[in-house]
Amino acid sequence: MDFKSWSAERAAHFELCAKKALPPENRLPWKLHEAMRYAVLDGGKRIRPLLAYAAGDLVGAEEEALDHIALALEYIHSYSLVHDDMPCMDNDTLRRGKLTTHKKYGEAMGMLTGDALQAQAFFELTQTKLPGEQISMLVKLLSGAAGSTGMCGGQAVDLLSVHQKLDLETLTLMHRMKTGAMIRASALMGLYGAKTMPPVFLVGQIAQYADSIGLAFQVIDDILDVTADTAVLGKTAGKDAAEDKPTYVSLLGLDKSREMAQNEINKALEALKNIGEHSAEYKGKTQRLSDIALYILSRDH
Amino acid sequence: MDFKSWSAERAAHFELCAKKALPPENRLPWKLHEAMRYAVLDGGKRIRPLLAYAAGDLVGAEEEALDHIALALEYIHSYSLVHDDMPCMDNDTLRRGKLTTHKKYGEAMGMLTGDALQAQAFFELTQTKLPGEQISMLVKLLSGAAGSTGMCGGQAVDLLSVHQKLDLETLTLMHRMKTGAMIRASALMGLYGAKTMPPVFLVGQIAQYADSIGLAFQVIDDILDVTADTAVLGKTAGKDAAEDKPTYVSLLGLDKSREMAQNEINKALEALKNIGEHSAEYKGKTQRLSDIALYILSRDH
Repeated sequence: MDFKSWSAERAAHFELCAKKALPPENRLPWKLHEAMRYAVLDGGKRIRPLLAYAAGDLVGAEEEALDHIALALEYIHSYSLVHDDMPCMDNDTLRRGKLTTHKKYGEAMGMLTGDALQAQAFFELTQTKLPGEQISMLVKLLSGAAGSTGMCGGQAVDLLSVHQKLDLETLTLMHRMKTGAMIRASALMGLYGAKTMPPVFLVGQIAQYADSIGLAFQVIDDILDVTADTAVLGKTAGKDAAEDKPTYVSLLGLDKSREMAQNEINKALEALKNIGEHSAEYKGKTQRLSDIALYILSRDH
Repeated sequence: MDFKSWSAERAAHFELCAKKALPPENRLPWKLHEAMRYAVLDGGKRIRPLLAYAAGDLVGAEEEALDHIALALEYIHSYSLVHDDMPCMDNDTLRRGKLTTHKKYGEAMGMLTGDALQAQAFFELTQTKLPGEQISMLVKLLSGAAGSTGMCGGQAVDLLSVHQKLDLETLTLMHRMKTGAMIRASALMGLYGAKTMPPVFLVGQIAQYADSIGLAFQVIDDILDVTADTAVLGKTAGKDAAEDKPTYVSLLGLDKSREMAQNEINKALEALKNIGEHSAEYKGKTQRLSDIALYILSRDH
């Protein structure tokens, strides 16, 4: 199966899982459950679930466990978008072509929807049939990536650096926390979806792979903000420059940014090659991860 | 040691644990960590930690495990207060005699502080030295109590019932979710702080105990809103009536409300008596839980 078919199949499978797993709209409080479903269903590239599925395949993780992991990751990602879109943050009206959650359900409900989705993410992890040690590790990885030294921390750095000139190092640190930490957790959590703990070597290489594609993802985002049409992008192009936000393009220019993205993807592919060379067990099983890296480099939205 | 000394000692011990466990202000992003510490430290009655410590003592839980559990509970409680105080919710300026977190650090930072504290709560649970199965159970209890069918759900019901006449049943359901679920989780999580799973009988009786004191707590809250001075209460008295919010007092009157609170506390004490009678192992070990129930009935703020 080629990458396009595989990722479409996984995304469709994920959608079914989410429809089943999210609290139903007819369960009290129905309005909150409706808003939670609105925020998660029918949206996004599902990069985090794809990473978890692809990494999980490497170690022969059970699909049932990977489903719960994918759901937890996407609940956290979705909650962060709901809160990000609120008036006190980015004040956005549209997301994935639909009204943002707080625009549709009101601000108070938007906040509660995000809060409830975060709790639901951790609840979801306890629903796997994995040994308790693995579940504990998954909770640790996800909470670490979502919290103050991960995603929330990166948003705080972003917030505190408005109208400030960031250097390349601080910009990269900010992105490593804001999006990188969850990308890393996505791939690593896939590895912990098997019934036994993954070998240390594998964890190290997958962390390297994930850190590189996470950074490349952000650099490409900055490039697309300058080069893509709003229609293709699905969100307002040129927004970063209009808001005088520091980006890789503003710091490095377009050519050097493209070079940086390519370098990071090379590093990611190198890590995958190391895995294949280190153990025959994983040889030929890194194709999906490699596909995801190349997709990130070539995406146009 | 009498209850007053014990609860003061536990609260002081908790404060020390929290000071050590919360990310330090000199770790990036320092402003977020400062705000998280501001939201948690130096505040509140610490009822949830007290419940966890008291229930944990019943089964001989390790203090180290109970510390992590108490921290997780209080992080969730603190985050809910930070978000509750924001302009899109209750729009409060003061909390525990200090500026509310968003008033001090700005709205965006207030939202991030709450979000990061929720993640930190689940991270904290993974830091106990308990077996993985226990950690998984703790995560399940806490996420269930914090999420859409617990605390967040109760807030949503509250929100959606503004200017509506609630009947006694719906009011009670709302409170059981909004505050009751976390009170129940506090006591139950204490039981899971031991290295072995607690017996089913004990879990059932402690759940009954906690549900009753949770309800009594809310009824007393409504009574105090009518009868107490603002100075003693530490928050504006008479606020419920001014906002035309449905309360036990508005539905039942003062006398019947007092009677209801007393009945619930009797039920809680009955559950503790059952525990002592059921097994010699627990005889005489329910004193702290009984003290907490009586404290809730007699509190004046």
